[in-house]
Amino acid sequence: MQTCNQDRLQNKITAFSHFGATPKGGITRLSLSKSALEARAEFCNRCKKLGMDIKTDDMGNIYATIKGTENLPAISMGSHIDSVVQGGNYDGILGVLTALEAAETIITEKIKTRHPITVIIWTNEEGARFDPAMMSSGVITGKFNRDDMMKVKDIKGISFGEALEASGYLGSASNRLSPSKQAAYLELHIEQGPVLEAEHKNIGILEGVVGMVNYEIHTVGQSDHAGTTPMKMRQDALHAASILICDLYDKLSKIDNELVFTFGRIISSPNVHTVIPDDVRFTLDARHKDPAIVQKVVDVIKNLPTEVVKCQVSSKELWARKTVNFHVPFVDIVEKNVNALGYTGKRMYSGPGHDAQFVADVLPTTMIFVPSIDGHSHCEEEKTDIADCYKGANVLLNTVLDIDKAI
Amino acid sequence: MQTCNQDRLQNKITAFSHFGATPKGGITRLSLSKSALEARAEFCNRCKKLGMDIKTDDMGNIYATIKGTENLPAISMGSHIDSVVQGGNYDGILGVLTALEAAETIITEKIKTRHPITVIIWTNEEGARFDPAMMSSGVITGKFNRDDMMKVKDIKGISFGEALEASGYLGSASNRLSPSKQAAYLELHIEQGPVLEAEHKNIGILEGVVGMVNYEIHTVGQSDHAGTTPMKMRQDALHAASILICDLYDKLSKIDNELVFTFGRIISSPNVHTVIPDDVRFTLDARHKDPAIVQKVVDVIKNLPTEVVKCQVSSKELWARKTVNFHVPFVDIVEKNVNALGYTGKRMYSGPGHDAQFVADVLPTTMIFVPSIDGHSHCEEEKTDIADCYKGANVLLNTVLDIDKAI
Repeated sequence: MQTCNQDRLQNKITAFSHFGATPKGGITRLSLSKSALEARAEFCNRCKKLGMDIKTDDMGNIYATIKGTENLPAISMGSHIDSVVQGGNYDGILGVLTALEAAETIITEKIKTRHPITVIIWTNEEGARFDPAMMSSGVITGKFNRDDMMKVKDIKGISFGEALEASGYLGSASNRLSPSKQAAYLELHIEQGPVLEAEHKNIGILEGVVGMVNYEIHTVGQSDHAGTTPMKMRQDALHAASILICDLYDKLSKIDNELVFTFGRIISSPNVHTVIPDDVRFTLDARHKDPAIVQKVVDVIKNLPTEVVKCQVSSKELWARKTVNFHVPFVDIVEKNVNALGYTGKRMYSGPGHDAQFVADVLPTTMIFVPSIDGHSHCEEEKTDIADCYKGANVLLNTVLDIDKAI
Repeated sequence: MQTCNQDRLQNKITAFSHFGATPKGGITRLSLSKSALEARAEFCNRCKKLGMDIKTDDMGNIYATIKGTENLPAISMGSHIDSVVQGGNYDGILGVLTALEAAETIITEKIKTRHPITVIIWTNEEGARFDPAMMSSGVITGKFNRDDMMKVKDIKGISFGEALEASGYLGSASNRLSPSKQAAYLELHIEQGPVLEAEHKNIGILEGVVGMVNYEIHTVGQSDHAGTTPMKMRQDALHAASILICDLYDKLSKIDNELVFTFGRIISSPNVHTVIPDDVRFTLDARHKDPAIVQKVVDVIKNLPTEVVKCQVSSKELWARKTVNFHVPFVDIVEKNVNALGYTGKRMYSGPGHDAQFVADVLPTTMIFVPSIDGHSHCEEEKTDIADCYKGANVLLNTVLDIDKAI
């Protein structure tokens, strides 16, 4: 078995934690922001020093490639370097840095591979600056229209197109990932959940990404003065929303133990302490690998009453995705390497979305998870032990080498 | 009985509805904004044409005075001309315009009064641009510190002091309303509630302003990824808040039929559809004329559980006010005039706060309400029939004239 260098990996994690560092030890590194461009520059410098060839495509995705011994499409691996506001030092960036560490090991250990090996940085995965998430892997796999994405603006009114143009990373569409140029895609990511830690597993062997639905539920009442309107005459849209959240929580809890659902966003209007709210919108995000379970959630939403405490209730689907299943031979190779390296693993589905789920539509793909301490992610406390990062890098490295031999 | 001129009153209401007009027929006329200054200029022009003397004090409050026949303190009446965002054409401004109409009637009908008659505009009653509400009546009656108020900034970073200085309405502290210069204060206002309309009454004969408490209730959980955290391991602060709102609604509903309470503001953090909320703050505003009932509300809040669905729960009082009782002889004069004019009236307490409640601490004071159609206020639909505005103006006029004779 080949192994990476743990100290060198730690050096990478530490180096990149400075780009967009927050006072509490996390990072805010929005896509194509100054700190994200610093991180990109550092990545490119390190790749160039290793003798890798660097290309970018028309979404600013970066491809850093080691030549192979044969004229074959590349085996690619990577993730993203952008973060949410006050995020952590592992989400996305660890997938890039473990891929870079695996590549560095191949180069410094002079391991010959038949296929070229490519490390990829995906632009704007989080969608925290430019909505939607996974924008650039989405464009190149046909999920989103590039022209539409170019026009998406951040809260300061800067469009993605303007930010990309200014970044210096706007490349050619001919450099996009495609089956003619790539043969496989692997992505290591933190679990962003507590399951691996709770079950004392080193590695998540991903089988796919769970399907999900995201609905907005809307209650409409009447906005009146808090001090004058007798209780019997009120149409309080926040009271209605609170009743719905409690009821939905109870109903959805009974569907399946593995179903997760979240009321993540609530916007109440006019949101003034002396005025009865007349308009409340809240989101319901629900995820499960089994489409039949997801359908049960949809059925519950469809059967919501149309009126609660004299307020009108309606719902609409904001978006949804079907369950994505990864390439089974690759999943098996990951599991074989987990065992061969003496690590413990768990076959599982990803709850969050990842660029890999889009890439899976065009290339054989799989993912590797490493544990998140206390399950935290998208927060400054987000953390994975270096020992686990190192184990993940070793699984990634050996999986790349096995795929190189197998295909 | 003396009566005002309904057409002239309608002309005033129409004229002032243009200052800050919104497309949907309401107004946005934030304190000391361009539209508020236009309305002030129009008021001053009209007063000057009527021969009234105009002074301003060091909070920008305007005092327009008709001389009396004797050297006595003035009988004053008025309200405010500022509005909330997307407010209506009656809240505040109707109290100013009926007072102006009463003054105009006194002048044009050559009615001699022993006391001077003063029409007052209070600066920044709504608090919609500069928090707190009733800022200027509060300063001159000793509720708020003037220096602190001068520093209060609007959302654009402009301080109240800067806006006041720029307005041209900054006058002398020696012009402030005080018992040496004023003998009485009357304020006509829309009810801002549905009770008068529902009970088919023309006039609300105010006995006081109800006491109230305003609390912020805070739930703290753990922010984690919506897609990964099993339901059993969650600390969902919005789930906790929804349970609390439903429970509080049920408990408070049982205390007293006349108690009103409102969860007007809710702020959930991070408020992202894919993240479990870790921090939710919502307000509870409760009002009743009986302090013992208000205390029961406080007891319910104090006895909230400290933990709900694994989230910490805490509460703090944001502000409170005691019940204010108006000057009974004036309340009786209002009621006498309602009957003498052949109108129907209802003795009642105000739920909302008004400048009159602060003035009541330093001068004999009372208020007159007119009905709000469908009880709406603080919204563009806010409306009072001109016939009811006219009836209110007549009650106000005759009450001023009766007080002039009585004191």
